Amino acid sequence: MAERSRGRILLSLTGQDAGHWARLLGQGYEVVTERAWPADPSIDYAVVWKHPAGVLSGLPGLKLVISTGAGVDHVFSDPDLPDVPILRVVAQNLTVHMTEYVVWRVMDHHRQGMTYRARQAERNWQENGQKTADEVAVGIMGLGQLGRAAARALLALGFRVNGWTRNPRQVAGVTTFHGDAGLKDFLAATDILVVLLPHTPATEGIVDYDLLRGLRRDNALGGAVLVNAGRGKLQKEADILRALDDGTLKEASLDVFEEEPLPRASPLWSHPRVFVTPHAAATSDPEHLAPLMLEQLARFERGEPLANVVDRKAGY
Amino acid sequence: MAERSRGRILLSLTGQDAGHWARLLGQGYEVVTERAWPADPSIDYAVVWKHPAGVLSGLPGLKLVISTGAGVDHVFSDPDLPDVPILRVVAQNLTVHMTEYVVWRVMDHHRQGMTYRARQAERNWQENGQKTADEVAVGIMGLGQLGRAAARALLALGFRVNGWTRNPRQVAGVTTFHGDAGLKDFLAATDILVVLLPHTPATEGIVDYDLLRGLRRDNALGGAVLVNAGRGKLQKEADILRALDDGTLKEASLDVFEEEPLPRASPLWSHPRVFVTPHAAATSDPEHLAPLMLEQLARFERGEPLANVVDRKAGY
Repeated sequence: MAERSRGRILLSLTGQDAGHWARLLGQGYEVVTERAWPADPSIDYAVVWKHPAGVLSGLPGLKLVISTGAGVDHVFSDPDLPDVPILRVVAQNLTVHMTEYVVWRVMDHHRQGMTYRARQAERNWQENGQKTADEVAVGIMGLGQLGRAAARALLALGFRVNGWTRNPRQVAGVTTFHGDAGLKDFLAATDILVVLLPHTPATEGIVDYDLLRGLRRDNALGGAVLVNAGRGKLQKEADILRALDDGTLKEASLDVFEEEPLPRASPLWSHPRVFVTPHAAATSDPEHLAPLMLEQLARFERGEPLANVVDRKAGY
Repeated sequence: MAERSRGRILLSLTGQDAGHWARLLGQGYEVVTERAWPADPSIDYAVVWKHPAGVLSGLPGLKLVISTGAGVDHVFSDPDLPDVPILRVVAQNLTVHMTEYVVWRVMDHHRQGMTYRARQAERNWQENGQKTADEVAVGIMGLGQLGRAAARALLALGFRVNGWTRNPRQVAGVTTFHGDAGLKDFLAATDILVVLLPHTPATEGIVDYDLLRGLRRDNALGGAVLVNAGRGKLQKEADILRALDDGTLKEASLDVFEEEPLPRASPLWSHPRVFVTPHAAATSDPEHLAPLMLEQLARFERGEPLANVVDRKAGY
């Protein structure tokens, strides 16, 4: 109660509960959800998720932009983005959620969940052969914090793990490949592809028919599998459907989509070999994220270094 | 080729591919699938799965009985069982398969697979809150080789793990309970119950309504979950259905059943909150098991100690 307001935060959150965020961040900060027009010098910080383009311009006092999620492609889609540091929140919690999602989906494809659910619907008591995890190679595109944590969990369960990154990177236990030159070999050694890349101009649409065609199909699973828990803009959904229908892909688990929410008319909803979740792999839980943001603001005000500052040139 | 036959094996395998087993075991041993009548002194060893009662009596030369699976309740159901050592095969492979099954089912219940599959069928883009594994306690009944391996894998994924055994047992990282006196506290601390007990007179029908009623329902998952990968005779299916329908149980994954194959008329097939697999959790792969059996026979013939000898009094 006695604490003086240390700054003014503008919240611009599309599809998130701004009231909830305002309560969580309103401890020591004044939180507003609308900016004055045309210029509002009172705003110090902006906390954003898919903010409308232009909402951040005309804020002469703006010092920081914080994304409520780990992804920041939505921030860069604003052509009038002010030249201030952009931070993203990477909760430990988010990494745990994502690791669980990857293990869940990889294990369900490996253990033939789609097949057995279809058999159950037919009251069909028929058993398939079952390989063990050490006969299956999971290939992770992107070995940032999320990718490395997923790799560790999959290795502990006995899977073979490959990793692909733009630049060379070593991760214990993971067979790594890099760059355009390494992509072909990475795919050819991969049975289940897990996409955890950031969305940048370089990665947009990277999961296309040609890429899927490169995966190993003659394998322990009887086909190649795609898991995308990164960003929807990484994938070309028409290509995924084509690959599913011509045998290039056996199955897919998709948590992200080119357009979200996934339109009701999308054939992905009803495809028998696609599992759809509503961008729920690694839910940003405001209760866990808000304290991390407040800690960043406190550091900023004390002049200390900030964590998770986005590299503007790389776009993530 | 030069190796002399070291003994004669009778195969009595119900529902398994005897020809495949005969080829695998026929390296150094003579394998027969029918015994002479009424007494056949030529048989040294019997390799069995659900053999007809009486088929082992009248074998005066019988020295060992080996079960092709880890379970041996089918052996003891023979009232004329000869008084020779009974061995079971516990392949490393079988433990790996079972661990994968347990991780798969626990993760699917934890990550709300049934809910999201139902939503997908409705083209419903709606996200649920999602807890992390450290907020969920998995309770394993039975901490033999299979139970301990499953516990280790679940702990590595962040779950809290409880264990219950007939007699006191310590397992690193697992909160253990034992005996009738410890069962109530074990259940009250458990959100997802994983049953990996052997089938004995003491455990038959143990998974009944009263037991399920003891599980923690007011929990991170919004209800209690049952996973039975042990034996079908451990469970009372009418009680499981009652528990599902009155809210005692939220969901169940069942790999084993009172009668197998599960009869087509069973309501378990079509229950929206039950996942059925055809006793496929830990398939006994003859290619992996046969070498272990041959190794046991070689040890026996050299007069060395045998592994995995069944305790007749305990029944497992």
